[in-house]
Amino acid sequence: MTGTINVGLIGAGRIGQVHAESITRRTAGARIVAVADVNQAAAEQCAGRFQIGEATGDPHDLLNNPAIEAVLICSSTDTHAPLIRAAAAAGKHIFCEKPIALDLAAIDAALADVAQAGVKLQIGFNRRFDSNFRHLRHTVASGGIGAPHLVRITSRDPAPPPIAYIQVSGGIFLDMTIHDFDLARFLIDDEVTEVYATGAVLVDPAIGAAGDLDTVVVTLRYVHGALGVIDNSRQALYGYDQRAEVFGAAGAVEAQNKTPHNTTHSTADGVQRPKPHYFFLERYMDSYVAEMSAFLDAIRTDVPTPVTGADGRMATVLGLAAWRSVREKRPVAVDEIG
Amino acid sequence: MTGTINVGLIGAGRIGQVHAESITRRTAGARIVAVADVNQAAAEQCAGRFQIGEATGDPHDLLNNPAIEAVLICSSTDTHAPLIRAAAAAGKHIFCEKPIALDLAAIDAALADVAQAGVKLQIGFNRRFDSNFRHLRHTVASGGIGAPHLVRITSRDPAPPPIAYIQVSGGIFLDMTIHDFDLARFLIDDEVTEVYATGAVLVDPAIGAAGDLDTVVVTLRYVHGALGVIDNSRQALYGYDQRAEVFGAAGAVEAQNKTPHNTTHSTADGVQRPKPHYFFLERYMDSYVAEMSAFLDAIRTDVPTPVTGADGRMATVLGLAAWRSVREKRPVAVDEIG
Amino acid sequence: MTGTINVGLIGAGRIGQVHAESITRRTAGARIVAVADVNQAAAEQCAGRFQIGEATGDPHDLLNNPAIEAVLICSSTDTHAPLIRAAAAAGKHIFCEKPIALDLAAIDAALADVAQAGVKLQIGFNRRFDSNFRHLRHTVASGGIGAPHLVRITSRDPAPPPIAYIQVSGGIFLDMTIHDFDLARFLIDDEVTEVYATGAVLVDPAIGAAGDLDTVVVTLRYVHGALGVIDNSRQALYGYDQRAEVFGAAGAVEAQNKTPHNTTHSTADGVQRPKPHYFFLERYMDSYVAEMSAFLDAIRTDVPTPVTGADGRMATVLGLAAWRSVREKRPVAVDEIG
Amino acid sequence: MTGTINVGLIGAGRIGQVHAESITRRTAGARIVAVADVNQAAAEQCAGRFQIGEATGDPHDLLNNPAIEAVLICSSTDTHAPLIRAAAAAGKHIFCEKPIALDLAAIDAALADVAQAGVKLQIGFNRRFDSNFRHLRHTVASGGIGAPHLVRITSRDPAPPPIAYIQVSGGIFLDMTIHDFDLARFLIDDEVTEVYATGAVLVDPAIGAAGDLDTVVVTLRYVHGALGVIDNSRQALYGYDQRAEVFGAAGAVEAQNKTPHNTTHSTADGVQRPKPHYFFLERYMDSYVAEMSAFLDAIRTDVPTPVTGADGRMATVLGLAAWRSVREKRPVAVDEIG
Repeated sequence: MTGTINVGLIGAGRIGQVHAESITRRTAGARIVAVADVNQAAAEQCAGRFQIGEATGDPHDLLNNPAIEAVLICSSTDTHAPLIRAAAAAGKHIFCEKPIALDLAAIDAALADVAQAGVKLQIGFNRRFDSNFRHLRHTVASGGIGAPHLVRITSRDPAPPPIAYIQVSGGIFLDMTIHDFDLARFLIDDEVTEVYATGAVLVDPAIGAAGDLDTVVVTLRYVHGALGVIDNSRQALYGYDQRAEVFGAAGAVEAQNKTPHNTTHSTADGVQRPKPHYFFLERYMDSYVAEMSAFLDAIRTDVPTPVTGADGRMATVLGLAAWRSVREKRPVAVDEIG
Repeated sequence: MTGTINVGLIGAGRIGQVHAESITRRTAGARIVAVADVNQAAAEQCAGRFQIGEATGDPHDLLNNPAIEAVLICSSTDTHAPLIRAAAAAGKHIFCEKPIALDLAAIDAALADVAQAGVKLQIGFNRRFDSNFRHLRHTVASGGIGAPHLVRITSRDPAPPPIAYIQVSGGIFLDMTIHDFDLARFLIDDEVTEVYATGAVLVDPAIGAAGDLDTVVVTLRYVHGALGVIDNSRQALYGYDQRAEVFGAAGAVEAQNKTPHNTTHSTADGVQRPKPHYFFLERYMDSYVAEMSAFLDAIRTDVPTPVTGADGRMATVLGLAAWRSVREKRPVAVDEIG
Repeated sequence: MTGTINVGLIGAGRIGQVHAESITRRTAGARIVAVADVNQAAAEQCAGRFQIGEATGDPHDLLNNPAIEAVLICSSTDTHAPLIRAAAAAGKHIFCEKPIALDLAAIDAALADVAQAGVKLQIGFNRRFDSNFRHLRHTVASGGIGAPHLVRITSRDPAPPPIAYIQVSGGIFLDMTIHDFDLARFLIDDEVTEVYATGAVLVDPAIGAAGDLDTVVVTLRYVHGALGVIDNSRQALYGYDQRAEVFGAAGAVEAQNKTPHNTTHSTADGVQRPKPHYFFLERYMDSYVAEMSAFLDAIRTDVPTPVTGADGRMATVLGLAAWRSVREKRPVAVDEIG
Repeated sequence: MTGTINVGLIGAGRIGQVHAESITRRTAGARIVAVADVNQAAAEQCAGRFQIGEATGDPHDLLNNPAIEAVLICSSTDTHAPLIRAAAAAGKHIFCEKPIALDLAAIDAALADVAQAGVKLQIGFNRRFDSNFRHLRHTVASGGIGAPHLVRITSRDPAPPPIAYIQVSGGIFLDMTIHDFDLARFLIDDEVTEVYATGAVLVDPAIGAAGDLDTVVVTLRYVHGALGVIDNSRQALYGYDQRAEVFGAAGAVEAQNKTPHNTTHSTADGVQRPKPHYFFLERYMDSYVAEMSAFLDAIRTDVPTPVTGADGRMATVLGLAAWRSVREKRPVAVDEIG
């Protein structure tokens, strides 16, 4: 097909606006024709900012709109699975933010509906589209380090989210590590078989009071023998710390942080380098554009999306395995979770 | 004013398309309503690519169009000054690629017309909008290195331009070093008083046969005492090498190259880092967006543009001084040129 | 005391010669007066190389020599504890390579004898004297990163040791990770309470056949709440990979690899940086000099040595805990080991 | 020859002690048997520190000592040429600190005497033995960057020397840039044909009052077509800045500063890297050891020294050319100087 793809945006919050920016200003061949948000004012504000023709408080207005070919589900996590099912029923292609859901039954039902409807589904693991991590995967895939032996991922946020968010997010393994679980699979194109997780509350006791952890280390074992290790913190005062390394039989490839500029300032007090980008909007904007472009391409050329529902499901499985590992103080086989 | 600014694009070549991209996809509040190119087919192709309503072979069609508020002059160098004069006469704001002209009389006549018409003029020294160089200037301006003592600029292209271009470009000091001359003034906000230049033909004898140099070193002296040094090559096989340093009484600040990603690949053969961006489109796209945004802001809020006609003139003066220095094998005072 | 310290060297192998080099050529105020090795020829060769007056096949010749004030125990691991006891009985100060022994009863007996004799004992954890790791500890101790939350240590050898060595070394946790266990305690000056270890045989099946692992990840928990993670490989083709990071409430401090020079080579093929130093002799020579200097200073000024017998014991405890963790597939409390 | 080389040290100041350290503690096969300094107390102190058997106020005591095979001339610059001549007459091999002398007639007379006596002479251009600069030369010599097009050298001291020193040193081009002139020849193994120098007094007016400059830029032309540029400052507040780059037809190779450790400290305030080594003793100690070792090897194996009298002479020639260039405000051909 060669025409412009008409897209409906569900959820006008921060990440919804990121995708609106990508489609409106940074990619060709698509436009957002309607935006829905349970907060009608937010929908209208977003519509104004991106010159979107229609704003509504009800996402079903979009699903009922025959002019809309694809929807972006950027609303709160608990709405993801029901909206996927409804969108599939309406024959819309679907881009959905992670996680699909916090329980596997809901995920499985949603994925079954998608399969039955034959629509495309892409999950929002944007880091796969970051130039650093793409280069790592490419280097590994092209044999640049030999057989992978170890995957190391460091992911630290600049500041914790609100406690209210933590209370419904599924906790650190499902709202934060979930990106790293996906990246761990992506970087070496292998499946994880076992998860051992341990953690602590070191940043803010309120996080612990909400039943969550703020500092964790997760050890992975892969099908083909490699080991993996992820470390997360909800608060790195120097900014968003996003690094990864794959080490193998013939070498290693490592991704350092990206910075707003590449300068060095030397004085009697020391030699100063720029801090990492502050947070995900600064760090990953290019990856958001690229993932949206890939989604639109998958529709346009009718090929599978690059991040499937199965990928989304597995990241949740690994998050659930990590929580069980913490509770039971033992390594948990992925098979135990489902 | 709050409406959308209607822009006319003159010149549909590579740099014209860069600005079309900036306005169409990367900035808000402006649109290109017509494009002119002496090659009508090129104008039409550009119009198609960026959904521009009108394509013409004659730039005066744009100047005669009352709906157009500003023009971008991206045609060949010899047309810059006449088009500036015509645009000024037509009351259009003007963004013009460097250089304004290769001779000062033409520049002065153009700038006089601009002054008389009271329109805005911005010259395309995009590097001023690069995050590296902005950080250098900001660090210097805020006292981060004390009084400047030395400015060092390295600027090397990945490959030489066609000989046909060199024959009309004014040579390396006016087609390439001209950016560095502007940067040299910008980084420490001071004027150059003296230029000493020396050079060689080391890359391609055909460049020498065309009367040009391909490898040069230029030494500068500034009003407030600082020294400067620029080195250029028309061919760096590893990519576009764009670095600068300002050293002063209290320290130094340095801009390293930017790279497509930030990774390290270690094997028995060595430790590999990414090459610099290949050339200006990759390296400076963000700066092109920012310069265009600044031009539109200057129109919108009626403030002076950040790169004036006087800035454009001075870069040419320094280029002419460099050529005289090479010919006469001596340092040349800027006052000698005008 | 102000005179020269007379030292006896037990073990003329690679590490023994390192210490001979340190004392003979790189520190003042001490000399090696005799060297013993069960291989008499090796002792004589060493004596020749470092102009040592006496070479013997029997270490007790040194212990019986009243002119010798201190001994360096650099012989095979199984001889460490008996020689410590004999040296203590002879009233000699003792520098002993790690590990003291592979079983705690032997260690405890040796440490008891040292305590009773009142002689000094320093264990050869040289990495504590490396400028990188000293800077990390200093930064942490001076509050530069706030309360420690996470310690990360990467330690990879360029090539595995002979299988014959692995068969008697106690395996990777006691011959290799043992350095990292000590470093983990040193960097944040806190004790480990729990160890979880997992590993694989990915480098050489012969290592697995010998009952050992070649690729491991170890997770630690500390008394004051911090987490730790160590990764090891017996083979990094790009050289000796020795990095560490401490992350805390107010920031992070990280040690990168050291290299033989600090250069960058850019060509059309890429941008090449130097590989890390090949192995410990290149990487840690300065730290060997500094540890020996500290040992001699402790004797000279009669202060405790900077790496005590208790430090040596604890590193073995953590190694034993790691092995138990692997065998039992669960986190092991340090208290369980002793 | 296989015996120990007996060396006499003339000049017990800072650089004399560096060489005493190299010979006494860091190299094998030589010893200092006598030290002379016009300040007898300094000679005695040095003798005590390095356990040198004889201390004298008169360097001729060393030249008259038949047991001494080689002398190190580390006294003040004005004594270099006369002592070279006297040492040559006495048949001693000679290591002499730079510069040989400030006038060419004195140098030529000294070199003639050396040639006639057939003794070895090595000039103290230690930077040739630094691992960074050796790697640059090696990379260039082995074709790693193709034909050299540009040499860039940055050399900045942490603080200016005393004015009294400047008054007798020959000024910046002969006391400081002289090292860079030698390095410029060494890095690409080519001769300089033309020098253009410009400078300023920006650090301290007292330096200007003494007739010297404190901030200079020097442009070079080489026999085989390459260009060169050196920048110097007598005061870099962040430490000793010692960098170089060679750019050529196929790439570039660059030497960054060396640092006391290789760590990164990240906080909310920024990302801090170590400053360069403070000054030459910290930065270049290894190169001093290596140059002394090379001198002793040249004696031992009877081969030419790696830094000859002709090298020493040429560095002075280039320094004199730079001064003439500043005075006459024009490029100066090396042939004009001699």
